[in-house]
Amino acid sequence: MTDEGRTPPPDPAAESRLDDTHRPGLECWVEGASKHPDFPIQNLPLCVFDAPGEAPRVGIGIGDMILDLSAVIDAGLMDTLPPDVAAASRDRSLNALMALGRPAARALRRAASLLLRTDTEEGRFARGVDASRILVAQDQVRLLVPAVIGDYTDFYASVYHATNVGSMFRPDNPLLPNYKWVPIGYHGRASSIVPSGTAVRRPRGQLRDDPSQPPVVAPTRRLDYELEVGAFVAGGNALGEPIPIDRAEEHLFGLCLVNDWSARDMQTWEYQPLGPFLAKNFATTVSPWVVTLDALVPFRAPAFARAEGDPSPLPYLASGENESGGGFDITLEVHLRSAKMRDEGKEAVRLSRSQFTGMYWTLAQMLTHHASNGCNLRPGDLIASGTVSGPEKDQRGCLLELTWRGGEPITLPTGEERRFLEDGDELVMRAWCERDGFARIGFGECRGEVLPPERRDSSQSS
Amino acid sequence: MTDEGRTPPPDPAAESRLDDTHRPGLECWVEGASKHPDFPIQNLPLCVFDAPGEAPRVGIGIGDMILDLSAVIDAGLMDTLPPDVAAASRDRSLNALMALGRPAARALRRAASLLLRTDTEEGRFARGVDASRILVAQDQVRLLVPAVIGDYTDFYASVYHATNVGSMFRPDNPLLPNYKWVPIGYHGRASSIVPSGTAVRRPRGQLRDDPSQPPVVAPTRRLDYELEVGAFVAGGNALGEPIPIDRAEEHLFGLCLVNDWSARDMQTWEYQPLGPFLAKNFATTVSPWVVTLDALVPFRAPAFARAEGDPSPLPYLASGENESGGGFDITLEVHLRSAKMRDEGKEAVRLSRSQFTGMYWTLAQMLTHHASNGCNLRPGDLIASGTVSGPEKDQRGCLLELTWRGGEPITLPTGEERRFLEDGDELVMRAWCERDGFARIGFGECRGEVLPPERRDSSQSS
Repeated sequence: MTDEGRTPPPDPAAESRLDDTHRPGLECWVEGASKHPDFPIQNLPLCVFDAPGEAPRVGIGIGDMILDLSAVIDAGLMDTLPPDVAAASRDRSLNALMALGRPAARALRRAASLLLRTDTEEGRFARGVDASRILVAQDQVRLLVPAVIGDYTDFYASVYHATNVGSMFRPDNPLLPNYKWVPIGYHGRASSIVPSGTAVRRPRGQLRDDPSQPPVVAPTRRLDYELEVGAFVAGGNALGEPIPIDRAEEHLFGLCLVNDWSARDMQTWEYQPLGPFLAKNFATTVSPWVVTLDALVPFRAPAFARAEGDPSPLPYLASGENESGGGFDITLEVHLRSAKMRDEGKEAVRLSRSQFTGMYWTLAQMLTHHASNGCNLRPGDLIASGTVSGPEKDQRGCLLELTWRGGEPITLPTGEERRFLEDGDELVMRAWCERDGFARIGFGECRGEVLPPERRDSSQSS
Repeated sequence: MTDEGRTPPPDPAAESRLDDTHRPGLECWVEGASKHPDFPIQNLPLCVFDAPGEAPRVGIGIGDMILDLSAVIDAGLMDTLPPDVAAASRDRSLNALMALGRPAARALRRAASLLLRTDTEEGRFARGVDASRILVAQDQVRLLVPAVIGDYTDFYASVYHATNVGSMFRPDNPLLPNYKWVPIGYHGRASSIVPSGTAVRRPRGQLRDDPSQPPVVAPTRRLDYELEVGAFVAGGNALGEPIPIDRAEEHLFGLCLVNDWSARDMQTWEYQPLGPFLAKNFATTVSPWVVTLDALVPFRAPAFARAEGDPSPLPYLASGENESGGGFDITLEVHLRSAKMRDEGKEAVRLSRSQFTGMYWTLAQMLTHHASNGCNLRPGDLIASGTVSGPEKDQRGCLLELTWRGGEPITLPTGEERRFLEDGDELVMRAWCERDGFARIGFGECRGEVLPPERRDSSQSS
């Protein structure tokens, strides 16, 4: 490992987990991979893809390509992988690998790193194989939701987001008394989770803007996105058996981006007393790449620094390791491009940039809280962080906050105004990690275009 | 069909769906089945069971036995079944049958009825087969959760329950303004759904009885049950495609009982603003028998009669058929037996008896509302009704209501008092349908005993 120009990792425990796969100078024989902004050889995110007429397969992103794990294993290029890891890598989803847990991800990462390097025996051998047998171009295949998601849970872990939203609905009492004690979360809908690139239809629903009138049924007028980080569960726990905070990260397989599309007017009308339902469950978009916790080792960060007067986490949510390195230093951005912007050849405009280090609760705390009552988590379950907003205006992770409930519209380069999303708007979320002395790694894109509402038929009219 | 003593069905549409399988005089060759209170030949509920060391199989309840569909089909006793229905009947869960939809259930019901009757060719042929090949005693096998439940949604459809609970938390404003317009529901946890008979461990969680003090982590002191009816989804809909109310019942495969265990103190502290989470997701018990909508044809009832001044359902939730026959006349009971009652040889005591006809929303309305924004429902998804409470005190479907938040304890025959559930309490829910001129059919039991909390370890202490 080279030490040139490297700042010490903020977390000593993470430091000890750095290995040869993180070394910034690694050269990869896949063209363009070494300097790729998202998928250099230090990242090696997992995905599930399919080509027309073929069954889904597990792959690893490298540069603009995917390393096809079934093909690699069939070609005898990963013979040192433990047999269970090899079998799981040949499955149709990541659930089998997630069931084997983080050690499987680590074994696979090491094997893939050796295979893709220019300076290893494995790399020289792999280069002798016809590349078209084991590499597929990302733009030639379809990237799928990478796991069969049994349950999807959405948290609310940004205190900035919670305070902003709370102050719109309850100006006197923006942050509820439980917020700084309880990692607030709720169950979302698994069936409507779609992969990046899936167009999302504007939903209809009951709206009531005027409390003196009956509600109407109409397409939502306040369609919004929420920028979130998702975590896939590894291993899991039996029903009735909590997961201690010290072991929580053994159950975090890897991270992705999540767009928790939201219909704010539907939400306002329906959400009491049992929480959001139809305002959220019409679609949730995930990015297709699972950036493993091992890839993220160089980018670990302390947990949120609580303010003077904030309570300490209760003991079941507290650990020294969580405090010193439970965070992830991830930068997240949201970009919007309207139909008119596309027509006029204008690039997408950035709406926000925020940092995942600003979350009040760590992913480990969310997971431990989730299982603290004995609730069983299963491999492939998805836990989302809630909207990643920061303290500044340009760090707000949804339009509800950015336009302050629509009252402060954003002006696009075409002169169009945006209070909420319009039909034809395309939204792209991106995220990456960078740090002096390490290769930058990225999450790819979480993309979705808004389609007009379905044709009105009599059963849907108000 | 005999007309002796029969009152006309309340719903003309249901009348037209009555067929030979509902005839009250049918004789069944399985011993004791003809007079069985729950599972006479007119019921034929589906289940999934396994014997030690064997794979799960689909069965049909008849008397105290299960008709093993794999064995029946292998023995050539249902050769007239459509091949896809026969294949689905040999699966390990009911999902394949549910995917084929209600016509598959109907075909299977007719075939099973003919096979089990004493007066048919099929019945005579089946009696010639060694019964031990095709029938299994219910008490010799394990009854499982009958479907792989992709998503579980819990509604809140009893206006009596909502008003009671609301008046405890918001005395001035018990029923929120959305209640009579929106079938309120939220997403529950699929992973922790367990079959009847599974013991349920008292969960730990954050509790805050005294708002001037920090919360503590302790086993819930207010463990409760909720008596509900569950509906399994048949067929399903594509993402983005609502299900019109006129077609909703094509997507209801069959019903079961649901105990939505609840930790009221955890719920009070955590539920704002995103709804119940850990207070509910530690366990949900379902009865193992799926009573099909065809079995329930004689017991259809009008939808809830809204009071003067209540709004009419919005058009997307309204149909003449729903109004005249969207309800189900099901009687539900909850019985409790404490450890001391068992020790003293005392029978369980009945806590409540309520009617499913008293629900403000029909199951068809819940399903159509659920899909009205385009949310996709999948075969095997579970939709629960919410607590089935009626207007009278002895019709309240949970202890929160029965003891009015613990303030009016119930006295058991042993002299013990119950405000909420105690360790060792066993709870049994039962339900049935009866009507003059038809055979009574039942739902079997939804049973669960409360176990003491898991041993406290350091990571869980407060």
